[in-house]
Amino acid sequence: MSSKLLIKDAAIVTMNQNQEVIESGNLLIEDDLIKTISRQPLQEDSDTTVIPGEGKVVMPGLINLHNHAAMSLFRSYADDYPLMEWLQKKIFPAEAKLTEEDVYWGTSLAVMEMLRGGTTTFVDMYYFMEQTARACEEGGIRAFLSQVFIGLDGGEGVKALQNAISFVENWQDQAGGRIKTILGPHAPYTCPPDFLKKVLEDTEHLNTLIHMHLSESRQEVEESLKVHNKTPVALMNELGMFERPVLAAHCVHLTDEDIEILSSKQVGISHNPGSNLKLGNGIAPLKKLLDRNARIGLGTDGAASNNNLDMFEEIMLAALLQKGINEEPTYIKSSDAFSLATSKAAEALQMENLGVLKEKAKADIAILDFNKPHLQPHNDPIANIVYSASSQDVETVIVDGKIVYNQGEFTTLDEERIYYEANRCAKRLRE
Amino acid sequence: MSSKLLIKDAAIVTMNQNQEVIESGNLLIEDDLIKTISRQPLQEDSDTTVIPGEGKVVMPGLINLHNHAAMSLFRSYADDYPLMEWLQKKIFPAEAKLTEEDVYWGTSLAVMEMLRGGTTTFVDMYYFMEQTARACEEGGIRAFLSQVFIGLDGGEGVKALQNAISFVENWQDQAGGRIKTILGPHAPYTCPPDFLKKVLEDTEHLNTLIHMHLSESRQEVEESLKVHNKTPVALMNELGMFERPVLAAHCVHLTDEDIEILSSKQVGISHNPGSNLKLGNGIAPLKKLLDRNARIGLGTDGAASNNNLDMFEEIMLAALLQKGINEEPTYIKSSDAFSLATSKAAEALQMENLGVLKEKAKADIAILDFNKPHLQPHNDPIANIVYSASSQDVETVIVDGKIVYNQGEFTTLDEERIYYEANRCAKRLRE
Repeated sequence: MSSKLLIKDAAIVTMNQNQEVIESGNLLIEDDLIKTISRQPLQEDSDTTVIPGEGKVVMPGLINLHNHAAMSLFRSYADDYPLMEWLQKKIFPAEAKLTEEDVYWGTSLAVMEMLRGGTTTFVDMYYFMEQTARACEEGGIRAFLSQVFIGLDGGEGVKALQNAISFVENWQDQAGGRIKTILGPHAPYTCPPDFLKKVLEDTEHLNTLIHMHLSESRQEVEESLKVHNKTPVALMNELGMFERPVLAAHCVHLTDEDIEILSSKQVGISHNPGSNLKLGNGIAPLKKLLDRNARIGLGTDGAASNNNLDMFEEIMLAALLQKGINEEPTYIKSSDAFSLATSKAAEALQMENLGVLKEKAKADIAILDFNKPHLQPHNDPIANIVYSASSQDVETVIVDGKIVYNQGEFTTLDEERIYYEANRCAKRLRE
Repeated sequence: MSSKLLIKDAAIVTMNQNQEVIESGNLLIEDDLIKTISRQPLQEDSDTTVIPGEGKVVMPGLINLHNHAAMSLFRSYADDYPLMEWLQKKIFPAEAKLTEEDVYWGTSLAVMEMLRGGTTTFVDMYYFMEQTARACEEGGIRAFLSQVFIGLDGGEGVKALQNAISFVENWQDQAGGRIKTILGPHAPYTCPPDFLKKVLEDTEHLNTLIHMHLSESRQEVEESLKVHNKTPVALMNELGMFERPVLAAHCVHLTDEDIEILSSKQVGISHNPGSNLKLGNGIAPLKKLLDRNARIGLGTDGAASNNNLDMFEEIMLAALLQKGINEEPTYIKSSDAFSLATSKAAEALQMENLGVLKEKAKADIAILDFNKPHLQPHNDPIANIVYSASSQDVETVIVDGKIVYNQGEFTTLDEERIYYEANRCAKRLRE
């Protein structure tokens, strides 16, 4: 028997091609899919669960294109450090102690935070990825997961690549299809050209998305120019990386030629404005990328460098930063900013049934309560979402047609247990 | 009989001179003042109201140095417009219809939003200021209020100045001292030098704080250089403005000489990063100002140009923007960023008994609930406040020793009524 959920009499922000907003409508979910969206009343059967939507705003669940979920254990553990000191004196020593258990509890905490904030899909890259997958399977979130690998140590790199391939094969389409596996070569500066050639050869049969860091810091680009006489983007292009579907994280320091390559090759880009500011990397040329129709969406990066997984914050930062640095308040319009966490993010993942409320799309949905002082009066719901709302205005979250969070309660996760275990793990890692 | 409030077993972020954080302590309030802060248990009398503080973080109430509170009616009413079109086609025509009633309900909505978000003191500049004062008196917030005036129309300017002076005299120290009145000449570009000279002469006896917009847009500075051959800051200095206590809003476009003047004259500055980005004005040189020991704190500006009154967002933006644009993650440290909304903001107002938790300071306090996924694990409470928290993590707010907000309930304001009236007023103004 199919399961039915009906959201009644709510404002519906569809993010469909016309960015249509229905002032008062009804949305019917059957199993994992959106069955109908209508301004007219919809039939309720005796087995239909009804969610009253008056005063509420229904929107697509948010998509977070770049995360290291388990790093939530390192939230507020080491801030305001120079980048290399942060990595070498704080993060790497703590990560050296990481166990499977840490990744499981750290990811569980992150999944809880993301669901609480209306994020229904995320992309991850980290160690012990089976544990991340387990936490996602249990938590009920949709995820694109990569076991990270680097290729600096010859044999070690090849072994890590094999592990990553095994992960891709073992976990693809698990958890009822909620888990997709992808490949995670860390970055051009940790994966030399010969190693990346091998990666491309050995994984050709998988034809899966490749997720990597790209042109994050000024130093990375300068080193690449020194060693390879090419920017990281030009180098990846030359290696044939962009003949495969790629999701590149950061892309902060780009030449006009880089922008041309990324756009024409339809490379997916995760713009991570919060992390880029906080780690002192700068501000990516988002407006230029959008003008060239780049496939770009938003990500938080890990909580150690953000320090939260709040996609509402990233949406606001994406819009405000481009207005501010270009001294032009018309850059970027609120609906375009919101698309970066919904419809355009889905494009970057090449998943047209995500990030949009339309018939036959996946039922990944966040419902916001607008009865809050900072969301009144009722002027423009998309502007309210982009410029005024926060993750904590989310009241109900549905993934794959199932309610996973509702009014303070998680249906899949044990909140107190996760706080306890995450604190226990974090304490050991700090010591 | 005195009223006593005791917060027990909470983490206490004092923001005193040593920026001391007490991991678990007790804070006793007697009437409007903090009586004792101690790591040891404090005596409870039969008439002491006890607030359990386990898992909670107690911090000074936030200070918002620049607002036009009633503009909350224009939240999300007109976004992503060019600055002049925004003002001339949207904001000015709507403001032309403003009545006393609009300002009362708009301010009530803003007061509710600010209290909900842990802001206990704000600075305002707008029309019909008696209505703002009334809303503040009833809402229980602390406020520094100025009836704005401009001096472009000769006689009209003089009349407006007289009204502003009457407001200062009538409302000074009302609401049990919670309301302080200040003077609000709008800006150098709307108040010509001769008019400002008259303002200084006619108000010398008041010796009250002067609040004005200053060097907000690039255009404003360019015009000033063209007309007066001086930057707005240099012009104000020449007029003798800075011999009086001044709180200048924005200060985005500054020369090194401007920074020197503002610092040496100890001019209070409201840094408003959210508004400055959103309206496309740019990013103020906060790091340079702090390096010169400027008296600087944070403000939201009105909700029409932000679009909320969330000081947590401004704190985060202040820290992140300086790291990002200077490509230096050590600018600005979390405790320094937090001081901009607490102790340093109080300095800018020349009120040493605000923005800090210490004996004999005003009992203006926000209590945060850290039992949230985005605030776990327990690493660094100040970093959590600055980089992870949002206004909605505030659970309890105390102003002048009285609980004004607690776990979803306002003790002074009628939430539903305010939403209803604010929507009614906003609808009329939009039409």
